Amino acid sequence: MKKITDLFNIRYPVIQGGMIWCSGWELAAAVSNAGGLGLIGAGSMHPETLETHLKKCKAATNKPFGVNIPLLYPQTDELMEIIINEGVKIVFTSAGNPKKYTGWLKERGVTVVHVVANKKFALKAAESGVDAIVAEGFEAGGHNGYEETTTMVMIPMIREVTDIPLIAAGGIGSGKAMAAAMALGADGVQIGSLFAASRESSAHHNFKQKIVEAGDGSTHLTLKNLVPVRLIENPFYEKVHEAEQKGADKNMLASLLGKGRAKKGMFEGDTIEGELEIGQVAAMIREIKPVAQIMEELILDFNQTIQKIMNWRFK
Amino acid sequence: MKKITDLFNIRYPVIQGGMIWCSGWELAAAVSNAGGLGLIGAGSMHPETLETHLKKCKAATNKPFGVNIPLLYPQTDELMEIIINEGVKIVFTSAGNPKKYTGWLKERGVTVVHVVANKKFALKAAESGVDAIVAEGFEAGGHNGYEETTTMVMIPMIREVTDIPLIAAGGIGSGKAMAAAMALGADGVQIGSLFAASRESSAHHNFKQKIVEAGDGSTHLTLKNLVPVRLIENPFYEKVHEAEQKGADKNMLASLLGKGRAKKGMFEGDTIEGELEIGQVAAMIREIKPVAQIMEELILDFNQTIQKIMNWRFK
Repeated sequence: MKKITDLFNIRYPVIQGGMIWCSGWELAAAVSNAGGLGLIGAGSMHPETLETHLKKCKAATNKPFGVNIPLLYPQTDELMEIIINEGVKIVFTSAGNPKKYTGWLKERGVTVVHVVANKKFALKAAESGVDAIVAEGFEAGGHNGYEETTTMVMIPMIREVTDIPLIAAGGIGSGKAMAAAMALGADGVQIGSLFAASRESSAHHNFKQKIVEAGDGSTHLTLKNLVPVRLIENPFYEKVHEAEQKGADKNMLASLLGKGRAKKGMFEGDTIEGELEIGQVAAMIREIKPVAQIMEELILDFNQTIQKIMNWRFK
Repeated sequence: MKKITDLFNIRYPVIQGGMIWCSGWELAAAVSNAGGLGLIGAGSMHPETLETHLKKCKAATNKPFGVNIPLLYPQTDELMEIIINEGVKIVFTSAGNPKKYTGWLKERGVTVVHVVANKKFALKAAESGVDAIVAEGFEAGGHNGYEETTTMVMIPMIREVTDIPLIAAGGIGSGKAMAAAMALGADGVQIGSLFAASRESSAHHNFKQKIVEAGDGSTHLTLKNLVPVRLIENPFYEKVHEAEQKGADKNMLASLLGKGRAKKGMFEGDTIEGELEIGQVAAMIREIKPVAQIMEELILDFNQTIQKIMNWRFK
């Protein structure tokens, strides 16, 4: 477990997901100040926006924080240059080939983590020389793997084949789930949904309200013929689902999705026409809380869980 | 944790799934003899077959064992009569309304457990007076819920709303996953896939071989417009998938499925045209082992996991 806290120089092995439209400087700084690792989500930022967020984050915390960069946008080179110029020391990459930037970043003294959703890419990421991997299960919000492997199955499966520091994501909404992830073989956890709904999240209040209202079965992995993504059900999701039931192909889905749906839903608060990316654990989120309280409750629940299971060994 | 071992009078809180075509008297007796709770899967048995299995199981073990009865077959009344006549003391029901038989069984001194796949039915089962519930996640093999909630999310969600003894199922293929399930709030685990592939399972060798060969992403939850079921991919699954991609409705899927597919695949070993029901953890099963060895390795791994996480509490 020390592996992750030492790697990032943080108190708790709790990493906040670098989510688009939720993870600005305010959230990242709050998580880092609470003893976890905050991540700015660059996936929804223009280069100059990222620069502003980095400067504000540095002013708001003296603790380590990082940036998440999905490797699928044309301006990735530019984002990487900004990160180096602003002295960022931790980068999480996702949605692309980790071989492309890992060496370049590590030469510049950056700790690099890559996000995967299956065993094959976990091994590829380890080979590419990253310092750690995040393995994200089917229950996670947002973009997801085609294999649909859940956190419960994925973590021991990956742990079995590599010693690389391993961060579990997907379904971690309590200290119980955090302890479970550690039992499965993870060295730390990445938490998205809980922080997306926090007071410091840059998500629109309407989206946070939808998270609070979500129950068992309110989210669905959808758009599987395009890029699988987990969304809260809303009129936009219903349209997609209807099209899929009629056999919609990739092009039809791409045209239905159009551009800017995630921004519309998550940042602008259009809960009818927007995409609302969130994990299954939304079902257990009932209140918009400050990050410091979320972290305190999480660690307390974790400690109580460990205390409880200590007596469980069999003779 | 004592709740489950006391309830069934067993050594380890490990219940073998009462799977169709896999769980005959030989498997159930082997699991009970190894300190868990063996279940005969009556779902694939004619009444006279069940009677034979019960007699053989009683001869093969003096430990407690039970029977799993899906409540969707016309001969359920007859199966219930046989169970009482043969002195069975533990019944797991699934796929139906627990109100129908729970009272009748409990009047006859039977411990009753009901299997659910979502929060709503967990609460309904608890209200119906069952002694415990099994909550089965999306990663589980065979029939599954529409909500697609994973074990990681479902167990804490149900634990939060009821104190009833809770058995986690879905994705439990190692002592690590067993410890994780307990951390999530379960009092015990139900294990299917590992035992389906055991030497004592009545499944056909060809099916067991397919389990051993399965990797990450080899199983899929399919037939969602009919009754969702998790299968290993094979030519039959490919046919279903193709039909679904073209927008097949319930009737088309029912006609494609026809009758006897599960028997054909799992019992007769037709891995081309048969249904092969198994969980995602098949990806971690590499060998057909005797039950006693499976149980020994499971408990050793569980103990080592607990030992490891004992030092994880934070100051």
